[in-house]
Amino acid sequence: MALNLQYEDIGKGFVQQYYGIFDDPANRANVVNFYSATESFMTFEGHQIQGAPKILEKVQSLSFQKITRVITTVDSQPTFDGGVLINVLGRLQCDDDPPHAFSQVFVLKANAGTFFVAHDIFRLNIHNSA
Amino acid sequence: MALNLQYEDIGKGFVQQYYGIFDDPANRANVVNFYSATESFMTFEGHQIQGAPKILEKVQSLSFQKITRVITTVDSQPTFDGGVLINVLGRLQCDDDPPHAFSQVFVLKANAGTFFVAHDIFRLNIHNSA
Repeated sequence: MALNLQYEDIGKGFVQQYYGIFDDPANRANVVNFYSATESFMTFEGHQIQGAPKILEKVQSLSFQKITRVITTVDSQPTFDGGVLINVLGRLQCDDDPPHAFSQVFVLKANAGTFFVAHDIFRLNIHNSA
Repeated sequence: MALNLQYEDIGKGFVQQYYGIFDDPANRANVVNFYSATESFMTFEGHQIQGAPKILEKVQSLSFQKITRVITTVDSQPTFDGGVLINVLGRLQCDDDPPHAFSQVFVLKANAGTFFVAHDIFRLNIHNSA
């Protein structure tokens, strides 16, 4: 499969759509529709799970309601199987917690004219003082 | 190709090896050997280039000498083509510049018993004050 030259627009559009759903507590569980039942990996703060059912369980276990998010950068690259690699940096605030920087990596894989999230790695950017 | 279940060790080993070469000014140009002549993408602070010759040019254009680097987290996932997706968070200091947090994403692709870097996205984590 060839490179998808729309990778930049696909990356930015996906990020907007994904966080639009994730950040709305009433809608959050619907992010599960971005993932494959068996072929999606999520690593959330170092904890790795596989497949949409476990990902849904994880998302539903999150205790915060409101997320206020500011995206700093979205870098996308096309993959040689027609997908898109996306790296997001930003800041978020959950409910009344202090704001944190975060990074999230997605790999979108092409399937039957659409994309699913094959890989998702999320980390708050918290660095120990050396 | 199956999942490579050694992804965790491969990710950690690669990160140690890559930065060991990159952070040594006398050795830095040798990171080019991790990339493919045509199939590697690098996005460095938002600027995207493709292929080892351009990546070497970029690496050689970096003006700092010494890098002091502390790795905070390395998250790896296996890809379904036998490769490894790696997300690195850490802090670095170039020469006498102020220290910065950074994030770097690598996708290692399997090829003839070894790996090359198919994707590399680097960003200093600098967030505008809102």
